[in-house]
Amino acid sequence: MNQTEKGILLVSCPDTEGIVAAVSTFLFSNGANIVHSDQHSTDPVQGHFFMRIEFSHPNLLEKLPELEAAFAETASPFSMQWSITATSKKPRVAIFATKEDHCLQELIWRWQLGELHAEIALVISNHNHFRELAESAGIPFYHVPVTKDTKAEATAAHFSILEENRIDTVILARYMQIIPEQLIQRYQNEIINIHHSFLPAFIGGNPYQQAFDRGVKIIGATAHYVNEQLDEGPIIEQDITRITHRYNVTDLKRHGKDIERIVLYRAVKWHLEKRVIVHGNKTIVFQ
Amino acid sequence: MNQTEKGILLVSCPDTEGIVAAVSTFLFSNGANIVHSDQHSTDPVQGHFFMRIEFSHPNLLEKLPELEAAFAETASPFSMQWSITATSKKPRVAIFATKEDHCLQELIWRWQLGELHAEIALVISNHNHFRELAESAGIPFYHVPVTKDTKAEATAAHFSILEENRIDTVILARYMQIIPEQLIQRYQNEIINIHHSFLPAFIGGNPYQQAFDRGVKIIGATAHYVNEQLDEGPIIEQDITRITHRYNVTDLKRHGKDIERIVLYRAVKWHLEKRVIVHGNKTIVFQ
Amino acid sequence: MNQTEKGILLVSCPDTEGIVAAVSTFLFSNGANIVHSDQHSTDPVQGHFFMRIEFSHPNLLEKLPELEAAFAETASPFSMQWSITATSKKPRVAIFATKEDHCLQELIWRWQLGELHAEIALVISNHNHFRELAESAGIPFYHVPVTKDTKAEATAAHFSILEENRIDTVILARYMQIIPEQLIQRYQNEIINIHHSFLPAFIGGNPYQQAFDRGVKIIGATAHYVNEQLDEGPIIEQDITRITHRYNVTDLKRHGKDIERIVLYRAVKWHLEKRVIVHGNKTIVFQ
Amino acid sequence: MNQTEKGILLVSCPDTEGIVAAVSTFLFSNGANIVHSDQHSTDPVQGHFFMRIEFSHPNLLEKLPELEAAFAETASPFSMQWSITATSKKPRVAIFATKEDHCLQELIWRWQLGELHAEIALVISNHNHFRELAESAGIPFYHVPVTKDTKAEATAAHFSILEENRIDTVILARYMQIIPEQLIQRYQNEIINIHHSFLPAFIGGNPYQQAFDRGVKIIGATAHYVNEQLDEGPIIEQDITRITHRYNVTDLKRHGKDIERIVLYRAVKWHLEKRVIVHGNKTIVFQ
Repeated sequence: MNQTEKGILLVSCPDTEGIVAAVSTFLFSNGANIVHSDQHSTDPVQGHFFMRIEFSHPNLLEKLPELEAAFAETASPFSMQWSITATSKKPRVAIFATKEDHCLQELIWRWQLGELHAEIALVISNHNHFRELAESAGIPFYHVPVTKDTKAEATAAHFSILEENRIDTVILARYMQIIPEQLIQRYQNEIINIHHSFLPAFIGGNPYQQAFDRGVKIIGATAHYVNEQLDEGPIIEQDITRITHRYNVTDLKRHGKDIERIVLYRAVKWHLEKRVIVHGNKTIVFQ
Repeated sequence: MNQTEKGILLVSCPDTEGIVAAVSTFLFSNGANIVHSDQHSTDPVQGHFFMRIEFSHPNLLEKLPELEAAFAETASPFSMQWSITATSKKPRVAIFATKEDHCLQELIWRWQLGELHAEIALVISNHNHFRELAESAGIPFYHVPVTKDTKAEATAAHFSILEENRIDTVILARYMQIIPEQLIQRYQNEIINIHHSFLPAFIGGNPYQQAFDRGVKIIGATAHYVNEQLDEGPIIEQDITRITHRYNVTDLKRHGKDIERIVLYRAVKWHLEKRVIVHGNKTIVFQ
Repeated sequence: MNQTEKGILLVSCPDTEGIVAAVSTFLFSNGANIVHSDQHSTDPVQGHFFMRIEFSHPNLLEKLPELEAAFAETASPFSMQWSITATSKKPRVAIFATKEDHCLQELIWRWQLGELHAEIALVISNHNHFRELAESAGIPFYHVPVTKDTKAEATAAHFSILEENRIDTVILARYMQIIPEQLIQRYQNEIINIHHSFLPAFIGGNPYQQAFDRGVKIIGATAHYVNEQLDEGPIIEQDITRITHRYNVTDLKRHGKDIERIVLYRAVKWHLEKRVIVHGNKTIVFQ
Repeated sequence: MNQTEKGILLVSCPDTEGIVAAVSTFLFSNGANIVHSDQHSTDPVQGHFFMRIEFSHPNLLEKLPELEAAFAETASPFSMQWSITATSKKPRVAIFATKEDHCLQELIWRWQLGELHAEIALVISNHNHFRELAESAGIPFYHVPVTKDTKAEATAAHFSILEENRIDTVILARYMQIIPEQLIQRYQNEIINIHHSFLPAFIGGNPYQQAFDRGVKIIGATAHYVNEQLDEGPIIEQDITRITHRYNVTDLKRHGKDIERIVLYRAVKWHLEKRVIVHGNKTIVFQ
């Protein structure tokens, strides 16, 4: 018996006439009903076009290979980059953390509430602090210590843990270690970091101390994809909070946490719901 | 010689399968290129569907009657309510004001900057205060006094001024008089008011005094279409600002003005750009 | 040997000349050093004056009775209401909850981080859901069922639990039951509730449904002291979040939770730090 | 006959015990009544102390020299930097502008509403665009062209205009020229600039283009005192607005204007009300 399932089609291609008509006609004539659609063009003339369509389809999982084969023909004349995802398959997520719990707590709590479309498959940390927090939520915990001399081994351990657990997405929930290039290349646009400043202000270490020293009146946080340049990957989400001359560095850290956890949560949620398309060093985020 | 012009198609109908495909195919095969599209469904099953499409078309103004006749056939099986607007024709706007200038100033200033897609055709006031302000901006000013005994005459004057000037939209920029029912019925969903509270809190007179008396920690403003029930029309936009125990009623009024003028500006801007669809007592606002 | 301790002096009296001089001279000549001071007057002429002073004092706990006796003489000519609190004594807090965990979780988590100046002495609920949550944080849990027929017994149970545990402050963390008048009178301005709307909008039940039906563009939450009138006690804190036509009632509830938990947290934090003075139906909140 | 006048006392000194008592006793015994008082200490031990007191005094203007002489004795043992200002004397302000009118318009409009405690004595511009705008508000306009070869003459002209008009404060309302060092030194902490980014992000030219290229999700504005380092003076106020992938550089500029004008207005207002104390490269801003 048929059952209605939900799918998401992402499309990215040079802008030209007739894209929406071609795609919507394809979906309609292949039994899919458009539930929501959003699009963006950097410029109708010579620009780039992006589209995200939520659709319902009877027996999507079963028919997916067929649908993909058929769509390839529609996509080809437009030089589309595209993907079709059945939402019944949840992305598998690994969370990296160190010693600050607020981002990890927030993600676990949102996940328990059903607000994150994911399997949180495991937590990895270079410390043992969060074993209980993870395991009491039913999430396997891996302690992978990282020292100057053991970076290669740690990376190897990370790789095998992620591979064995078929991880799709890695969340750095205030993980205070540099991610090696091999990992970044293996998980292109699938590693999300939270930086504790409104980038590009206060790149690098100790951004709250930097903010204090500069005497700013707002502090912020930035969730971004990790690429080879530290703190320079495509930004997914940012937010800020107002501060006053009364706040010392400890106060900044305390208030900053509230921004960090909500900004990371939003970025992760949108990523998992396939709302984010990376284009060059920027993101299109469909709401 | 052909020239590319921009049009906006608004559609509202019961949700069902195939709407997007039908509309986008219609536009494509009639020489229109979709520049931006947004849609909303209250529920894919038994719900109501809304769509706003910006498109470009060679010689739209000339071909509009033809296009409308053709679209009527596409629209009919879906029981669509719809409109096609050529953006080269700017709506004609009348602003009503009394003695507070901040909303009027903001609208005129935005209009001079080219941020409002409108002809501001005239200012009407029950006082003479703003004659110079209006006229120095090149906007005709009409002084129509309103007293208890002259309401009928005032309404008649309003009607004839609006008709003679072919007004499409009326903005009440802190106009402190009740709008008579005939006017509301003549300009259905075309009269926008700014109320100085976050409705439905503090309906009626003196909302800042009410807010002060209640001891709230936020004040706000609400732009809404005017219907027969005072302060109960469909809300287009709202915003707020934080206040503290230090603010007296005068402070509330002063800070409130900043919210009022920006909220009214946004609502007017979106209305003029055909971003707002009224459905029952609510609005869909496409960004 | 002496040790420096921190104290908080709250003062409230009719405004007149010389209050600040009298109080600051008293503190100085009694060995207290003003660390922070804030004040407010509703009106220098005929108004009411409020002051909060943080001070440091060697051996405050030991000298408190002496200091209080001495200050009574300074206070008397000004008709002051006043209190001196040694911050080394933490208020004892009881949290009431029902079935929604976000506010309870937030308070426990903040408390574990050291961000709430309190002993969370116990959690009371009319359901058994949160036993594990409370107990795993080391907080005793009391299940007091409430049915139509057992209200009197439940109130008696509440009273004896609160008295036996020497509770100072009661937090209603989405506790979905009416608080009986005796409890309100016993804990005057010491019971804090979170209401899931920006009061005075949407008083009463189901505020998110009410907000959806009205078509507002912002939703909010309000933390207030509980008095005999439902949802009409003095407001401590409010905040809002923007919504769009895309949000159904479930979405409103989900986004509302984020506001509820942060608004309640702020109000509780400020209350516990003696930053809130109730005056009539309003609050002065010193930052 | 005596009349009550308002004064503002600003104090800045190393923190130690007894400051508040000494100052409040001085005021009380010299016939001044404290209307509002605010203070801040970077650290009670070895820190720096700041205080702002609003007081009322009969015949303040007449008695000011006497009061200052007397306060010098109170201030000396504490090594205070201090000033007493009679608010009946309004600061004289010069506004510099170039070709963008939003900041200039906002300041003039606020001033006409009585929201700026100042005499706007003149507008200076390197272009002639705003002559009518200034003069129709009754403000003298000076056109001082600036070219590569005439910088020295322009600076000389600026100096003599400012001196002749006894200017206290200079506002750079999007004045697109570098301010020469002599002017900065002559008007220490009395020149306020608006930079169109949330500093320290996007220092230098074309910040909106920089923001677009980096793909940020928020843009902002910063009002700061001008010192010798470009865009690095003490920050008075900052604010931001959210943006999306849909905004091109023109959109960023348009939305940015709304932030710029409100941020500059706030900073100017606070400066004129003597709410801002500069300490090193930071500001204390008393609300």
